Amino acid sequence: MNQESQKPSSDALKVIAFDIFGTVVDWHGGISAEVAQVLPEVDADAFAMAWRAGYQPAMRGVMERLAAGEGGFTLIDELHLAILEDVLREFKIDRLDKVQKRDLNRAWHRLPAWPDAVEGLTRLKRKFTICTLSNGNIGLLTEMAKRAGLPWDCVLSAEVFKAYKPDPRTYLGVAGVFDLSPGEVMLAAAHHDDLEAARSCGLQTGYIERPLEFGAKRPKDVSSRESNTLHAHDINALADLLGCGEQR
Amino acid sequence: MNQESQKPSSDALKVIAFDIFGTVVDWHGGISAEVAQVLPEVDADAFAMAWRAGYQPAMRGVMERLAAGEGGFTLIDELHLAILEDVLREFKIDRLDKVQKRDLNRAWHRLPAWPDAVEGLTRLKRKFTICTLSNGNIGLLTEMAKRAGLPWDCVLSAEVFKAYKPDPRTYLGVAGVFDLSPGEVMLAAAHHDDLEAARSCGLQTGYIERPLEFGAKRPKDVSSRESNTLHAHDINALADLLGCGEQR
Repeated sequence: MNQESQKPSSDALKVIAFDIFGTVVDWHGGISAEVAQVLPEVDADAFAMAWRAGYQPAMRGVMERLAAGEGGFTLIDELHLAILEDVLREFKIDRLDKVQKRDLNRAWHRLPAWPDAVEGLTRLKRKFTICTLSNGNIGLLTEMAKRAGLPWDCVLSAEVFKAYKPDPRTYLGVAGVFDLSPGEVMLAAAHHDDLEAARSCGLQTGYIERPLEFGAKRPKDVSSRESNTLHAHDINALADLLGCGEQR
Repeated sequence: MNQESQKPSSDALKVIAFDIFGTVVDWHGGISAEVAQVLPEVDADAFAMAWRAGYQPAMRGVMERLAAGEGGFTLIDELHLAILEDVLREFKIDRLDKVQKRDLNRAWHRLPAWPDAVEGLTRLKRKFTICTLSNGNIGLLTEMAKRAGLPWDCVLSAEVFKAYKPDPRTYLGVAGVFDLSPGEVMLAAAHHDDLEAARSCGLQTGYIERPLEFGAKRPKDVSSRESNTLHAHDINALADLLGCGEQR
């Protein structure tokens, strides 16, 4: 898509909600680095991929149990820990005690921001309200923001809406929190399925290219799709497209 | 209380949650000023007092209906608007249309911070996680923070816990969000009833003096009570007591 041809209805836009894992922070790089440190005997890249792969099925399980009236909403910290136990078994590691597992699990709180994120968000914040919209829990997102310097106006999460993305309650929940119509809110994400679900709720959508989300060995197709309101190389480019003044 | 005699167990303290209306922002000053502008014919001080007085009964009504299984959780924006209708009737004002009422109602989003708040919070944020814990809704608190420059790490609200203070779910909810024990959290507030409820949940408590909360005509007793962990003249003084380095 030619960037000049992108015509956002940016005068109506009030709030930009960001997906986090992969879009704002580098989960593959962060998890691989901590795994390499704690478990030098394993393939850290494969371990990170396996840990992440358990995430969607675990959330589906929670939502199925919730729908059946069995058990409550579960925080991602708990899901990540349960998946970690499985992955450790799969990789035949049994030497971590409870405290070590708990600390490794908090690697998800310590994920590094992509290099453009802090500057891009700081520029966007001058003109819009910027928030998270992640399946990560509030405590995780808050600690991550504090460490990485992510300047959120507020931290919204599946934990607030008691539903995970792509449940419509999450996207419409952001509009509800700010008493806006869905078209005044944009979801910015590096994942087309997340953006599609937001679009079907009436939100604007901004695709962020993250070709290295799965590591340098697995470059991701980041070609643009007409269906998104905007397509940006990174968060600084999104700020450019939305008229947020010059980069430093 | 002699400040030297205050012995906080500050090495255990991780999170400080702040009450907002009266503690961080000046609701009486802010509401009076906007009422004086929009309704020059009324006694703005009396109008502000009447509006605020409707708040506790309105919240009690919601919680009673919730407990009886009738109706859902209600945002403070809606309660404030319903009370405004009552107060306008009481003051015999019928010249505001729907848009004007809605705009006046958002005066609660535009309340000014007490002069020490931004600096005090900025200092505390370097050492602790700082968040709101208010009955105000997330949208209100976020807009207020953005306008006033309040540097929250995250915005927590009755809206997250689906219960208003002094319900224990709110105070214990903060500890739960950050996976902490209640004693690792402090509530900072200018109201003894709020602090008492937090203390009964095991939180530390910091009383903030706000002698002018109800305006210059009604100075409030701000003498200290032994039951609080800390007693501070203002938020900068709280930062002093918690060893957050020098003021500017």
